[in-house]
Amino acid sequence: MTRQVTICIVGLGLMGGSLALALRQARPALSDAHDAGAAAGAHGAEPEHQTMFHRIIGVSRSAATLEAALAAGAIDEGTPRLADAVAGADIVVLAMPVRTILRMLPEVGACARPGTVVLDLGSSKTEICAAMAELPAGIHPVGGHPMCGKETSGFGAAEASLYRGRLFVLCPLPRTPASALRDATALAGAIGATPVVLDPATHDDAVAAISHLPYALAVALVNTVMASHNGVARSLASSGFRDTSRLASGDVEMMLDILMTNRTAILAWIDAFSGSLGDLRAALARGSEAEIRATLAAAKQRRDALRL
Amino acid sequence: MTRQVTICIVGLGLMGGSLALALRQARPALSDAHDAGAAAGAHGAEPEHQTMFHRIIGVSRSAATLEAALAAGAIDEGTPRLADAVAGADIVVLAMPVRTILRMLPEVGACARPGTVVLDLGSSKTEICAAMAELPAGIHPVGGHPMCGKETSGFGAAEASLYRGRLFVLCPLPRTPASALRDATALAGAIGATPVVLDPATHDDAVAAISHLPYALAVALVNTVMASHNGVARSLASSGFRDTSRLASGDVEMMLDILMTNRTAILAWIDAFSGSLGDLRAALARGSEAEIRATLAAAKQRRDALRL
Repeated sequence: MTRQVTICIVGLGLMGGSLALALRQARPALSDAHDAGAAAGAHGAEPEHQTMFHRIIGVSRSAATLEAALAAGAIDEGTPRLADAVAGADIVVLAMPVRTILRMLPEVGACARPGTVVLDLGSSKTEICAAMAELPAGIHPVGGHPMCGKETSGFGAAEASLYRGRLFVLCPLPRTPASALRDATALAGAIGATPVVLDPATHDDAVAAISHLPYALAVALVNTVMASHNGVARSLASSGFRDTSRLASGDVEMMLDILMTNRTAILAWIDAFSGSLGDLRAALARGSEAEIRATLAAAKQRRDALRL
Repeated sequence: MTRQVTICIVGLGLMGGSLALALRQARPALSDAHDAGAAAGAHGAEPEHQTMFHRIIGVSRSAATLEAALAAGAIDEGTPRLADAVAGADIVVLAMPVRTILRMLPEVGACARPGTVVLDLGSSKTEICAAMAELPAGIHPVGGHPMCGKETSGFGAAEASLYRGRLFVLCPLPRTPASALRDATALAGAIGATPVVLDPATHDDAVAAISHLPYALAVALVNTVMASHNGVARSLASSGFRDTSRLASGDVEMMLDILMTNRTAILAWIDAFSGSLGDLRAALARGSEAEIRATLAAAKQRRDALRL
């Protein structure tokens, strides 16, 4: 069975805009829609449940963003009015900074029709999933976090390929029906991502390690080196510094929301990191060559083993 | 005046191999040599002193590396015998790890003809320049550090474009004659790099900040996150982790030498960094939103201002 759904994307920045572009690209031309649905049914793993993202409504406060998204063919309809757009949707995707999502969830819950799936793209999941648990009965929440991004933001930075080949973490709640998780899985698949189901705490601890800690290090590195009066250091900075510090260029409000909503996990990883750096510092201060070599070799082996 | 020099490159790994390839690419065909010299004289800033790297001798302990370098046309002659190669050269370039350079400088000094320029490519300069000061009178030492590299090593990773558009730090000693600095400057120019003259201590403090500290952070990050039992973190690692941790894949013996010969500067920068990370940690623990926002915004502004 092919289900034709209307999707409402709230926020048309890098993540929401890229989602719209990717869904639009994945959608067969209208005349092909029936055939494509049948073909997908023939090849897909779940022929009994095909979801086609038939109509895309974009919500943004910015008239310029709505115009740009319409002009790019990313959305079929654009509006600044959240309530109308949510009320007409089968799936609502919240693509805003984490605390904006937290603030808007009650309004989304109040406007959505019974049976609507509410998915978010926020980078920390524990607080969002807790807030989703308070949505009215009949609304079907799924926490989401696609493992991708760039150090640029806004619809101008959006691209249809952003999600392709990336993992898309999904955090169903105990109340989430299987059909809603299937819709979210279908959405991830339609944009070329691989869905991975995790509980919110496991997700938040993992991303604190591989994303939020590296961001904190990049921030402290840039503030240490570039705030110093060492103009020579600035002038010599090359590809190594560029890559290690890249995350510090991330959007401030987005990252602030992430840090503020994942504090416990991030603090623990900062402490673990500081212990490791402190050990290396102590070995260097002692000139313990064998110990330093072992530390560097272990890091190289682990980094080389990463498939990135 | 065009001076035709024989250059001996000791070590044909990433740096030495790339230097050979770049010099070979820069060398005009033999029949064009005179014209090219005249043309360069017409356009160049110092028409009275043209240096042409006429003949390239490669030194390596590895027969396979010598064969590969000869096959690639990177060198005109290859030998495992340092003494012969050095004795026949006008310019000797030492392209080995820092402490190998320190160990071999006395032998190079013993074999080199009076008037020979000895340049190195090591990443820390204070200890090397101090050792260069002990070379026999008549040998002309110049410390060197091209600001480039990759996390791959060996001649197989060498490429003619490695130095193009990069800075090439030169540290002349008090005893270094102007002619030797001109030769080193000409070498940097021939491979597309921009020479920058610095004293060794200034150089070492600057690269501790923009290169060795980022390396130490990458090592501690990888050892913290990848040594943990958090397999989910490993599986979610994406482009942010990849870039922040990239330097940890650097060659262990090369980096060990750098850390061991630049300890004082690196320890000071680790301490400054730890202070900055500690401040951010404390603000996060307190939930001081305004302070965190200011820290993140300062880092973003500084990172965005970098031309990298």
